[in-house]
Formats: sequence, C-alpha cells, structure tokens
Amino acid sequence: MKLDINADLGEGFGPYRMGEDEDLMPLITSANVACGYHAGDPVVMDKTVRLALKHGVDLGAHVGFPDRMGFGRRPMHFELKELQKHVLYQLGALYGIAAAAGHKITHMNFHGALGNMAFTDRALSDALVEAVKAFDAGLSLLVCANTEYEKAAKDAGFRTISMLLADRGYMDNGVIAPRAMEGALIKDPATVGRRVEQLLGDGTLTSISGRTLRMDIDSILVHSDTPGAVALARQIRQSIVASGGVIVPISRGSSPA
Amino acid sequence: MKLDINADLGEGFGPYRMGEDEDLMPLITSANVACGYHAGDPVVMDKTVRLALKHGVDLGAHVGFPDRMGFGRRPMHFELKELQKHVLYQLGALYGIAAAAGHKITHMNFHGALGNMAFTDRALSDALVEAVKAFDAGLSLLVCANTEYEKAAKDAGFRTISMLLADRGYMDNGVIAPRAMEGALIKDPATVGRRVEQLLGDGTLTSISGRTLRMDIDSILVHSDTPGAVALARQIRQSIVASGGVIVPISRGSSPA
Amino acid sequence: MKLDINADLGEGFGPYRMGEDEDLMPLITSANVACGYHAGDPVVMDKTVRLALKHGVDLGAHVGFPDRMGFGRRPMHFELKELQKHVLYQLGALYGIAAAAGHKITHMNFHGALGNMAFTDRALSDALVEAVKAFDAGLSLLVCANTEYEKAAKDAGFRTISMLLADRGYMDNGVIAPRAMEGALIKDPATVGRRVEQLLGDGTLTSISGRTLRMDIDSILVHSDTPGAVALARQIRQSIVASGGVIVPISRGSSPA
Amino acid sequence: MKLDINADLGEGFGPYRMGEDEDLMPLITSANVACGYHAGDPVVMDKTVRLALKHGVDLGAHVGFPDRMGFGRRPMHFELKELQKHVLYQLGALYGIAAAAGHKITHMNFHGALGNMAFTDRALSDALVEAVKAFDAGLSLLVCANTEYEKAAKDAGFRTISMLLADRGYMDNGVIAPRAMEGALIKDPATVGRRVEQLLGDGTLTSISGRTLRMDIDSILVHSDTPGAVALARQIRQSIVASGGVIVPISRGSSPA
Repeated sequence: MKLDINADLGEGFGPYRMGEDEDLMPLITSANVACGYHAGDPVVMDKTVRLALKHGVDLGAHVGFPDRMGFGRRPMHFELKELQKHVLYQLGALYGIAAAAGHKITHMNFHGALGNMAFTDRALSDALVEAVKAFDAGLSLLVCANTEYEKAAKDAGFRTISMLLADRGYMDNGVIAPRAMEGALIKDPATVGRRVEQLLGDGTLTSISGRTLRMDIDSILVHSDTPGAVALARQIRQSIVASGGVIVPISRGSSPA
Repeated sequence: MKLDINADLGEGFGPYRMGEDEDLMPLITSANVACGYHAGDPVVMDKTVRLALKHGVDLGAHVGFPDRMGFGRRPMHFELKELQKHVLYQLGALYGIAAAAGHKITHMNFHGALGNMAFTDRALSDALVEAVKAFDAGLSLLVCANTEYEKAAKDAGFRTISMLLADRGYMDNGVIAPRAMEGALIKDPATVGRRVEQLLGDGTLTSISGRTLRMDIDSILVHSDTPGAVALARQIRQSIVASGGVIVPISRGSSPA
Repeated sequence: MKLDINADLGEGFGPYRMGEDEDLMPLITSANVACGYHAGDPVVMDKTVRLALKHGVDLGAHVGFPDRMGFGRRPMHFELKELQKHVLYQLGALYGIAAAAGHKITHMNFHGALGNMAFTDRALSDALVEAVKAFDAGLSLLVCANTEYEKAAKDAGFRTISMLLADRGYMDNGVIAPRAMEGALIKDPATVGRRVEQLLGDGTLTSISGRTLRMDIDSILVHSDTPGAVALARQIRQSIVASGGVIVPISRGSSPA
Repeated sequence: MKLDINADLGEGFGPYRMGEDEDLMPLITSANVACGYHAGDPVVMDKTVRLALKHGVDLGAHVGFPDRMGFGRRPMHFELKELQKHVLYQLGALYGIAAAAGHKITHMNFHGALGNMAFTDRALSDALVEAVKAFDAGLSLLVCANTEYEKAAKDAGFRTISMLLADRGYMDNGVIAPRAMEGALIKDPATVGRRVEQLLGDGTLTSISGRTLRMDIDSILVHSDTPGAVALARQIRQSIVASGGVIVPISRGSSPA
C-alpha cells in the first residue's frame, strides 16, 4: 500500500514566518505551496520550492483568495469567470518560480475559505476545476472525499488524490466534522497514529459517533501550522511504515489504501 | 526593412481603466502586458492576452515594481536576489493566464522606475537578465540602445529588440532625453512620422541638438497612456509603409532598420 | 424645505481616475470620500478633502471592505469585532487627512457590498454603528429608509440622514429595487427631475408598480460614476429650487422633505 | 534623572505575529505602534493600543513606507508632497483606533528606511515634520541625536525626545554605527546595562573607538524584534533604577539625562 504525506507550506510573508517548513519538509512527500494570495511571497515561494526539490518532495500549488490579512479564511464572493483568472495567476506565478529553480508543479489544492466553499458548491467547483484544466490538465488535484469539489474534479477527468486529515474527526457521511463539533480535533499523536494504522489495516476510519467508514485514501495531510506538526508527521510516518505501507509522493503513483 | 510596433497595454486595475487597448491593439504587432505589480490584475491580463491573440499580436510581459499606487514609477531598492523572484513571479503569472488563453509569451520588458534604474546600473541589469534567463532564455528582450541593460541582455546571450521611442527626443549619445529637457517630448504626429521615415530612409535619427545618430532599431514604442496614442500609432504605421517598410511582430523576425 | 445633495467622491487610486469630482463638487453639498480601502488613497483623499473645503461642501467618510481590486463590491465575511477595527481605521485615516487640510468629518456612509449587507443584517449593522459611535457619536449617518441599518443607527442614538437615490426605482415596501429588476434604473434626467419635484411637492415617491410612497428624505444621492452624473446633479439642483426647496449641507440642518 | 523606555510594537499582521508585545509592554513606558503600512493592521493596532492603555504606557505612532512585504526597510522615493499624505493617513488611522479605545497619541517616530533616509536628508525631514505638525503640533518626536531629522524637528518647534539605542555602537560623531561596522551590535545584556549606568552616571557614552561622547538622552529604545528583547528591557530597567534614575513615560516629562 502506497501513501503520500502532504502539507501546506510556504505560508510565511515578507518578514513573517509561519510553520516549521525546514523541519517538516524531510518528513513529507508532497508540499502545497502558497502562491502569494492568502500567504507566501515570491521570496518565500522560491525558498520553499528549492527546499522541496532538495528533499525530493513533490511540488503543489496552494491556491486561495486574495486576502493576506485574513489568511484566505474569509469567504469572499467573486464572479466565477473572474475567480478563474485568479486561479491561473497563482498557478502561473508558482510555475515561474519553480521553472527557474528546476522544479515542476505536479498537483494543487485550494486553500481555506475557497476550498471550504468548493466542498458544497458544485458551480464554484466546476469553475475552479475548469481553470486548472485550462492551465494543465495533467495536474493531480488533492480532494476531500464526498465533496462537490471531488465530483467536479473527477467529472472533469482529473486524477484526484483523496486526502485524510488524520487529526480531524469525521462525521458519519464521511465528511470532516466542523471545528466546533465535539471530537472534531484530535490532538493526541498516538490516537492519530492509530487512525492511520487502522486505515492501512483494513481501509477504514471510525467516525466521531463510532460508525466504521470505508475510506479510499491516497494521502495524509499534516497541518503545518498546528503546534506539534513535526512530531505528528513523525508519528504518521512511523504508523504507515509499521503497517507495512510505503510512503511515496503523489507523482510516483500512490494508490488507494 | 521590417519593423515591429509595440505598446504597453493591460494597465487597468479592478474598476479602473487606463489606455485605449481595444483601439490600439489592431495597430500594433507586440503588446507588453502588465503583470499585476505596477498595474494590471488577472482579469485585465486575461482580457488583454485574448485581445492580443485575436489580433495576431505578440505577447510580452511588462515587469515592474510591486507598487500599484505609484504605478511602478517610484524607485525602490531591493536586494537583487529578492528582486529576481519578483521578476519570476510576474513572468509566471502572465504565463499562467496566457497558457489558459492559448497564447504564448515571446518577449518582455521592464517598466517604469525598474526599467530606468536598469539603464544605468549594470549589476541590477545583470540580475534582471539572469532571472529572465532562468525562466526562459528564448524570450526576446526589448531594450533601449546604449544602456547598461542592453549590454547585460546581449552579454547573457539574449536576442534584443532595440526600441525607438518615436515621440521622445534623443541626446547626442543616443540616449533618450529626460522628460524635463527641452525637446524631450514630441507631440506633433507629423513630426513623429517624419522621424520614422528618416529612420527607415537612412537608418538615422536627429538628436535634440541636431546631430545625426545612426540607430539600429527593431521596434517602435507607442506610449499607450499618451493622449492621442491611437492617432500616433496610425501615423507611425503609415510612415513605415510609406517608407517601404514592413510591419511585423517581434517573433516573426524584425531586423535592424 | 431643506435638502442636501450628496455624492461618493475621491474614488480614484494612484494613477487611476474615477468620476468627475472637480465638476460635481460645486453642485453638491455633501461629499462621501473613499478612505483607501475600496478606493481612494492618501493623495486622492487630500485632494478631495481640499476640493470639498473650497466649495463649502460637508465632508463624510465612505467606508468599505479592504478590496480595491473588487471596488468593495464583493461580499466578504468578517468577524464583527475585527470589522469594527477596519471601520475605525478608515474613519481615522480620513480624520488625519482632513485635520491637516482644515476640514472636519461631519457624516459617514458605508460603501458597496458592506453597505448592502448592512441593509438586511441587524447584527452587522449594530456592529458597524457601534464602531462609528466609539469614534464620534456626533457624526450623522447617511441611511436608506426601511433598512436594518437605519434602525440600528436610530437605536444607537445617531442623527440619520435619509437618502433618496433619485435615479433608482423603489419597490412598494420603500426599498430600492435591485438593479436587475425592470424599472430599477432611471436614466432620463427629466424623469429624475420630476421625481425630485414630486418629493418636494407632497413628500411622496411613486414606486415601480405605481404605488404612492410617503418618503421622509433629507438628502439626494448622485452616483458620481454614472455617465452624465454632472448633468443629473444640475437637473436635481434645478428641480429642488423650482419646487421652492433650499439646498443645504447635512451639517446645516436639512430636515425631512 | 528621568528616563523613558520605548519600543516599536504592534508589528504583527493578519495571521502573523512579531515580537513579544505582551511581555514587553509592562517593561516599557512608551510604545510606538505600527500603523498598517510597513506592519500592523487595524486588529493588531487595536490590541496593542489597549495593551498600552492597560499598562499606562504612552502611545506613539510608528510611521513607515507602504511596503509590508519589505517591512518598510526598502528605500522608496516619493514626491515629498505625496509622502506627507501618507504620514497623515497613518497618524489618523492610529488616532481612529486609539480614540475608540480611549487612548491618545502623544508621540511618534519614523520607521525603517523612511527614518534612516530622514537622518541625512533635510528636505525629506522638513516634509515629514511639516506633515506631523499639520496633524498635531503637540506631539513629541522621537529623534536620534545629531541627525538632520532632529534639526528639522527642533526648527519646527517640536518637543524632541532623544533616543539612545542601548544595544548599538556609536561613532565618534555621536551617530549610530551602521550594522555592518564592527562593534555596531551589542548583544550582551550586561554590557548594555553598563552603558545605561554610565549614561545615568555622568551623561556620557563611549564610542566604538573609545571616545567619550556627551549625550542628552530622554529615552532608551528596546528593539522588540531582537531575540532576548524582554531580558534586555529588564536589564535596562534595573540599570536605570540602580543608577538612581526614574522611569517615566514621554508625556510625563522625561528630561535630558
């Protein structure tokens, strides 16, 4: 069984740091790099791309709303045709930085409020997916299972990479529980590890209410801005290996667990 | 004799318009499109790229300082290594928009204060040129004759496109006269036309002081934000044709006049 | 009967112009000046404040979302406590510019999506009004009749100035009709003039469907970015005077028509 | 002998933190708060203003270039008349936040490249000082001794507060040594403490070359973004008290040491 480990990195800006990119990069196989909209800037992007290249980590674009002050977490309402150009701008900007560094974008993901809105909004999802397709139909799209965005990505013919958020509780319908719900946040690394082992063991996850969910997972997301992210990433690696899994980047063909 | 006509377009932003892009585009052969730093935004870029494509106009990147409020006209002092990442970001962003629209960047130019500073600063020019080369060594670089930037571009092996600013006076050393100098601005279209005809006739230009300068020119720049830009572009086209010249885009091989 | 005429001015930015501020200012009595968020910048603000001062025009703050690219027209979702600080920042910024120029803020208004969202959202309206009150409880608030925002303003003890959008159709409930509705936009100056005359004659307005609405109006808004805004302002002035009304700024005590 | 201790605080932005404001605030008597240009945003400003108020700390404005990505450290060249409006905008913005919180600006300072450029540029200094004066001639201006800016401030009639950068070496002419110079950075808290004690003892400072400089100092600056800033602030407090000095905010009349 092959599993990718991905994280959102490159979220610093100008004089500001965020996350422990240097420590996390050796532990993951795919990095989703902010493109200067919700976070990141050209200097941070370049540094992150080169760090990924050095560690053989796949490069992805992390695309968000143009709202640095709100870290892309505030819902904004765009005309879809306009929003598509902002997706292209970000993908291209990272392409430019990556090309000069000798790296290559192989996947992408939507960040924050934009990603969340796409979960339940098919028209938005279709517009986003169409923009990515116009840029490069060969990119893999990181998705959360059972969302409108996942459907839009599949229907457009994209290779999708289904993510598990190992430190988040799931509801009975296979969707991530909202942060406010009891059991939504799993802070104990050992518990996170057991969930990964269960997934690799029989391909299931236990929902907050106790139901057994069958999950086809290709990648595990580590939240880079969570305190203890590095320890969590180590735990996840260890649990994958202990379960007989192989940790491989998205581009080298992770397959459903 | 082949000559290109280029203009800086796509300088609107959000709700704001600038220049008469729709009217100018059919009259030029190469468009230098602002990349969202000193001007432009993803929506404006997309519109301008598609307009260029429709009219068979070559697409160039117009790269500037991150200063929309100052329109990139305020000198800023960057560490060169950092500035290079901003060049890549802009080139990539336009690449992304262009890729989706089915167009392709064939040339580029530096805008405003950044361009002016490069005229006389070899270290800056080398850094800029190195960044472009890391992105795409096959791009053509629009240059002003007799500048440090031109030398840096040539030394780095780039194909350079020497621009004439037909509505600006030149000093005896072949450099554009500062705006404040008497004779620096040529407002009469007929005079501009005669200068173009002289250039195509014997390859010379007359300096403000009356000296005859030999100029190897590949392209004529039309300032899109000058009142009367459209009339001026028409005059330049007419003068080129009247002199037996052929108007061709940069990519189709304009050669020194 | 006293009526104020207000307009949203100072909406340029950096190299970009918007509206005909110089021509409109002599025709209005209250200017609502953008504060550098959805539009405007310190230089534009200063110029507009001085122009208002010169023409004896009341100075108001036009407060919006931090989204220049979208001109503050895109709905954004803020935590209300955070949004309040953005209101204060804008009010203060205009205060600083005005203090140096010798002018004084006497009223304010919310712009675009922020203003529209407040029409129907009482919690948002309360938060906005609370922020303004913490800054200066003596400001007058421009309101549209029959909105949650008007109620919030009155309940907080503010002096409210009820605006008529003379070039917009109203629904039977006294609320402005959405732009998409037939009859929502009134482009003919003569018709606008007749509406003003009706208002001054018997204090009524005719809705799109033909119902007679009683309106207590203190000020008429001229949309500065409408083509023909200057002609429309002239028409409105003429209609007020022809109906025996007196045109006075907000601060000099316009009273319900 | 009375001495103020000041620090530049409120330099976070959106999701990003900078400095240990909560720990430093109880140790200082004057806070210079970033105004959303080089750093800070309305939410951070509000939080910092309220923290200052709670600790009885004087509130100052820290005014910089509009360059968050560069933290205001990149020299930019503005027309002076335009730059003045940016000064007013920032002062006003902080005024708005402070007014709502019940605090009051009593002093100000220029940040980063803007402050450094003013050290040696009298025309720039005069323009900056003139802008502050138009806003509030009663503000105190933090200055570095022996600079053009200090002269401009005094000539304009401002009360100046002469700062010692206790962790920076000085040249024989009484000016702070450039960072690159050997001896420019003093990292040992004990050494910093001895310098403060010397200053309070006989009013002198020893230059890098060993010369004894007479310094009239009103306030000591603690760099909030230096690692160990809190420990350094404690050391400075202790050294002042040990030397028989009294630590008082700018507004309560610190006098030359």
